[in-house]
Amino acid sequence: MSEVNIETVVSFLKSLQDNICCALEQADGKGKFVEDNWTREEGGGGRTRVMTDGSVIEQGGVNFSLVSGTKLPPSATAHRPELAGRSWQACGVSLVIHPKNPNIPTSHANVRFFIAEKEGEEPVWWFGGGFDLTPFYPIDEDILHWHQTAKDLCTPFGESVYDEHKKWCDDYFYLKHRNETRGVGGLFFDDLNAWGFDKSFDYIKAVGQGYIDAYVPIIERRKETSYGEDERQFQLYRRGRYVEFNLVFDRGTLFGLQSGGRTESILMSMPPLARWEYNYQPEGESAEAKLYEYLTPRDWLTELV
Amino acid sequence: MSEVNIETVVSFLKSLQDNICCALEQADGKGKFVEDNWTREEGGGGRTRVMTDGSVIEQGGVNFSLVSGTKLPPSATAHRPELAGRSWQACGVSLVIHPKNPNIPTSHANVRFFIAEKEGEEPVWWFGGGFDLTPFYPIDEDILHWHQTAKDLCTPFGESVYDEHKKWCDDYFYLKHRNETRGVGGLFFDDLNAWGFDKSFDYIKAVGQGYIDAYVPIIERRKETSYGEDERQFQLYRRGRYVEFNLVFDRGTLFGLQSGGRTESILMSMPPLARWEYNYQPEGESAEAKLYEYLTPRDWLTELV
Repeated sequence: MSEVNIETVVSFLKSLQDNICCALEQADGKGKFVEDNWTREEGGGGRTRVMTDGSVIEQGGVNFSLVSGTKLPPSATAHRPELAGRSWQACGVSLVIHPKNPNIPTSHANVRFFIAEKEGEEPVWWFGGGFDLTPFYPIDEDILHWHQTAKDLCTPFGESVYDEHKKWCDDYFYLKHRNETRGVGGLFFDDLNAWGFDKSFDYIKAVGQGYIDAYVPIIERRKETSYGEDERQFQLYRRGRYVEFNLVFDRGTLFGLQSGGRTESILMSMPPLARWEYNYQPEGESAEAKLYEYLTPRDWLTELV
Repeated sequence: MSEVNIETVVSFLKSLQDNICCALEQADGKGKFVEDNWTREEGGGGRTRVMTDGSVIEQGGVNFSLVSGTKLPPSATAHRPELAGRSWQACGVSLVIHPKNPNIPTSHANVRFFIAEKEGEEPVWWFGGGFDLTPFYPIDEDILHWHQTAKDLCTPFGESVYDEHKKWCDDYFYLKHRNETRGVGGLFFDDLNAWGFDKSFDYIKAVGQGYIDAYVPIIERRKETSYGEDERQFQLYRRGRYVEFNLVFDRGTLFGLQSGGRTESILMSMPPLARWEYNYQPEGESAEAKLYEYLTPRDWLTELV
């Protein structure tokens, strides 16, 4: 096992951010990411990249950040007493893409690494991450492609990895008050340490590349599909659910806001426009009603084939 | 002291809902509230009234609800062991009005009553409530009227009531991650019991009527003021803050969603349309910049005169 090394993780994350931005700019064809560098008083900083008004991407952000501290807050050590008194570093890439065309799903991906160190002791570290898809008008071919890409990248790491991390994703991206999943899922994992550093890091790399492989072809396939005002209005309505999930349930968002993180970078995940309508219900056999059938955990790869 | 009587409170709340809806329909001139009656499996129910696409009110809801249970959840009794084993009832009127014209502020009001009873013991009860104003383009005359109405209704209940409940409002409607108050405040109070039932109930009545007296004249004064697309876009952006407050901080919203309340009635407070924009900053001396100077607790009645 090679040594745990945050520099190589940081270096990978920066090039992942570059690669994702490049692939999305190409797929968009017009929009460009604008970069904002920021630093954090307590240590570290980040580079936030935001695209607005692309030809495909209405608004989207791809963040890299590396933050550090000399002491973990009590909330972080309450359930992990081995972390008390350690200095820590956390780095990650996090992104949300809100396309304009309701036929292209919103997507989210994140990969992250945490390490807490203490002189003379082994470092405590773990990886986390995943990606998930939030369609408005779900297209089976796209969902199959998304999940097949996820499964293919997981398989080299173990036969059950896809099933486990797919289930974790379904469980995590769930709006209890709506009894709906956020979308059709993907992968989610946290506290990944048991595989050792090298294998875990390789998995993170596969997840990062897998996001590009999973999402870009969907953009390419759907970006010319026409849509009307009704579809646009339904998309704006459903984006309200995205806001509800991120502000009510998402641990990363809430921890960031509560711990004095950089608000503008955290809330870059918000949609450019969203709406709420009292007691909206999709009509019987409509295209909108189809979405609601998809907002429950399903074994897409066997059910949709 | 007269006996604590939830029936009279419920009866008052229902007529308050009627009065507020009637006053708002008149001020709007076109929109009508549509009523939805609902019941709750565990006990109780409500009547939700929503107006959409009025001439003034873009979307707004005025809810009455009365919910009850035979046993309080552990979270409710942890800090109040005297409540353990009691049956309880909670009733209230809660409203949020999102006008279309950015010159008319969004407004919120709430009055509520809670009672927990046990055979052979004194009931435990309290009132809570208040109202607060969220302007987009703050107009001093309107803020003065809002706070003067609040102060005038408080004074009969004690010289310091306005100051105390105004401060409570500033403290409560605060977005920590933005370092902004939600708006220019008003009144907020909870756990009101020390005054005894009759005086507390009278205060609740004054607050309910006070909301009408404070808000309707602002609608009347501003509903003909013209505005352009820039003002509309700023309003939609600022409505994003309203969403952030309600979903991240508002205890009523979070408790409602977590405890299995009726989601559509709780989230009727969401705006019809809201937007987010990365790192928006108002320009130097603009009308938009003025708002940001007003999003900090101030003694309006002495400072604005």
